[in-house]
Amino acid sequence: MSSPAVAYARENHPRFLNELKDLLRIPSISTLPENKADCRRAAEFLLAELTHIGFEHAKLLETEGNPLVYADWLHADGKPIALFYGHYDVQPTDPEDEWLSPPFEPTERDGNLYGRGTCDDKGQVWAQIKALESLMAANGKLPINVRVLLEGEEEVGGEGIEAFVASKPPELKSDFALVSDTELFAPGLPTLCVGLRGMIYTELEVRGAKTDLHSGMYGGAAPNPFVAIAQIVAKLKDEDGHILIPGFYDGIIPPSPEELAAWSSLPFDEEHYRLTEVGSRTLVGEAGYSVLQRTWARPTLDVHGIPGGFIGAGAKTVIPAKATAKVSMRLVPGMTPAKTFALYKDYVEKIAPAGVDIEVRLIHSGDPCLVRVDNPYIQAATTALREVWGQETVFIRSGGSIPIVGDFDRNLGIPSVMMGFGLPDDNIHAPNEKFHLKNFELGIESIVRFLEEAGK
Amino acid sequence: MSSPAVAYARENHPRFLNELKDLLRIPSISTLPENKADCRRAAEFLLAELTHIGFEHAKLLETEGNPLVYADWLHADGKPIALFYGHYDVQPTDPEDEWLSPPFEPTERDGNLYGRGTCDDKGQVWAQIKALESLMAANGKLPINVRVLLEGEEEVGGEGIEAFVASKPPELKSDFALVSDTELFAPGLPTLCVGLRGMIYTELEVRGAKTDLHSGMYGGAAPNPFVAIAQIVAKLKDEDGHILIPGFYDGIIPPSPEELAAWSSLPFDEEHYRLTEVGSRTLVGEAGYSVLQRTWARPTLDVHGIPGGFIGAGAKTVIPAKATAKVSMRLVPGMTPAKTFALYKDYVEKIAPAGVDIEVRLIHSGDPCLVRVDNPYIQAATTALREVWGQETVFIRSGGSIPIVGDFDRNLGIPSVMMGFGLPDDNIHAPNEKFHLKNFELGIESIVRFLEEAGK
Repeated sequence: MSSPAVAYARENHPRFLNELKDLLRIPSISTLPENKADCRRAAEFLLAELTHIGFEHAKLLETEGNPLVYADWLHADGKPIALFYGHYDVQPTDPEDEWLSPPFEPTERDGNLYGRGTCDDKGQVWAQIKALESLMAANGKLPINVRVLLEGEEEVGGEGIEAFVASKPPELKSDFALVSDTELFAPGLPTLCVGLRGMIYTELEVRGAKTDLHSGMYGGAAPNPFVAIAQIVAKLKDEDGHILIPGFYDGIIPPSPEELAAWSSLPFDEEHYRLTEVGSRTLVGEAGYSVLQRTWARPTLDVHGIPGGFIGAGAKTVIPAKATAKVSMRLVPGMTPAKTFALYKDYVEKIAPAGVDIEVRLIHSGDPCLVRVDNPYIQAATTALREVWGQETVFIRSGGSIPIVGDFDRNLGIPSVMMGFGLPDDNIHAPNEKFHLKNFELGIESIVRFLEEAGK
Repeated sequence: MSSPAVAYARENHPRFLNELKDLLRIPSISTLPENKADCRRAAEFLLAELTHIGFEHAKLLETEGNPLVYADWLHADGKPIALFYGHYDVQPTDPEDEWLSPPFEPTERDGNLYGRGTCDDKGQVWAQIKALESLMAANGKLPINVRVLLEGEEEVGGEGIEAFVASKPPELKSDFALVSDTELFAPGLPTLCVGLRGMIYTELEVRGAKTDLHSGMYGGAAPNPFVAIAQIVAKLKDEDGHILIPGFYDGIIPPSPEELAAWSSLPFDEEHYRLTEVGSRTLVGEAGYSVLQRTWARPTLDVHGIPGGFIGAGAKTVIPAKATAKVSMRLVPGMTPAKTFALYKDYVEKIAPAGVDIEVRLIHSGDPCLVRVDNPYIQAATTALREVWGQETVFIRSGGSIPIVGDFDRNLGIPSVMMGFGLPDDNIHAPNEKFHLKNFELGIESIVRFLEEAGK
């Protein structure tokens, strides 16, 4: 179907790209205190742009951390309200010396735009805004009502937006969310993410002696917290990736046979994935499940760090008084953070070896989430994507957690359309992050067409 | 018996203590590259003092690392030659915030001198030098010949002195060594240490993915180096403290029945030790062995740190590409570092879980050692200690390793008199290290009298 807004987007694409580069030049790293002012600059940049394209009520909403950006256009009477979500903060850039071009000087190479935030998530936020501009400019109005809510703390836990959404403010009343922070399953393959794993992130603190001791003098009598952690962790997960916490797997809702069949027809080669993405000697995980099942639909347990003791170069023969393991678990539908944490805590307390005291703390958590593919917004998105990309949309899940999707569901009662345009090798959170230029272009057109379909 | 040198030591004690404080203010932490110049400063401080008290041939002997300090006084014709050994380097001070007074600002409290290095080993080195000064100043000469050899890398493996001693240089030709780096068994109880455990200090590096990965995306497929380390460590030592490396205990020479009987008559209460020294919920270790047996005469295994991944506050969901466990083992007579390391390495390579590559590195090692108590220098020391402390000397072992004692034995063919004046609760290698002021004083007198006895 012919769309004046799509035509406008195509005509104006070079300008859209230049504007995106300006946004990318702002080093809005939310992890680093020294970039706090840059985060605000990025928010103000977006605020000005939303006003410029004709949005109303544009404002910064202050939080304990970086501000939220809000604006709306609510003149499509009788039509649904979409809540656009994205984030303007970015990851740090270390290791800096692995970047082939400076992280905050966006650079085009081989059909990609390189720079920190190109894909995660400024490029996708800009695709949203430029889709809205195209519709407004071409038609003088939008086909549905739209609220935009952008955050600046996605990379540091998103507490500000979580608190705001939990307060159920009237200005977030919507019918669905458009979350633009995911990726295509493969180049050129239109993709909607319809499932996310939940998580619990914990600290397991193990205390032995009252003070650090010398392993020569006390080795053989004083408990060693690292050895205790090792003994506990070895009882949490066996060498086949099976988690040993009693009751851990109880109640899990497996993917439907249709979903499993769809996954097995996706263009995915485990050996290619091992070589290009993981690079380990072998892949690991539970026997009897494919990689996609293991990373999308099975719960997992990982250890992220074991601070304590001596971590410098060389040798120090300390038996530390305490050590802490940072342990997280990814949860799938049928599991809840509260129940999983309780099972884990009880089990760890039971298996802790003699001589040590342990404390198990929940640092943060998020529910797993599944979107029903028969909701009308998913259907409208599917139609739009088919047309723009010339292929049937695939429904995938993600092993990661996007807590805001659960927050929208729980607090606003709305489903999310997770339509994103990154690629698996876009190096988000790593050096040489990129965004495929064609995906930026088709992303804008996809959002334009999605709103047009949703307005029908 | 009346000793002019002891009288001199008593008169000059306040000055001795002030000089020691100056030495202690030099932060000669050998583990930290940024303190390299401080190590040299400490060496130069000692060099100047040895010259000042009348020693000759005083010089710094350069090594790959921190210099050795050498000086001698060899004018007691026909008398034996003693080789004084101690070290001027100290442990790091972390965790810094647990110190009640600054680690490098020596502070007197409750009859103790607090500060890093007070007991281990600058206070003991200074007791040696002040004993020599007292003898020289009171008598114009020493009762026997003395060479002094001080090192600055005891806390980082002592490779420099090891290489120097292994070269069997003529300037180390001696009849026995006086090693001042041990402790009294109990306050006021004169003690000679006649056995040391050996050790191997290793790094176990585990590599999984080629780069750090996100546990949401890759959890369930990518190997986790921390989990692998936990699984390996849990197979190194069981929860009863028994080490599971095949062949590990083969060939161990147990203490004699007489030695065991002497140990059981020492003033030692396991519950008091647990409460005052260790402070843990229970003591740990092999069933069927007393604490003294477990820490002096049984091999043990400890983990000192597991660097890698995320160790900051809060949460980061990284599956790190690699992690490293610092693992050491203490060895007893009948075991050798080479054989033990080979057994350990073979076993770890065999039990490493799928998906990871491992590398096992030996960082440093030392042989276990036993001294015969019927040698004449041990007898002279016993006489001197009885007189100064008013009690019979006890013969103990130490669970720690003083590799130099084995080096002196092997390369110079001389026994060591390990006469030290620390206390079990002196917090060496920990915050709030201290040296009992009375022990500093009686330590000087003990060394004075020991040399006088050895010269008879």
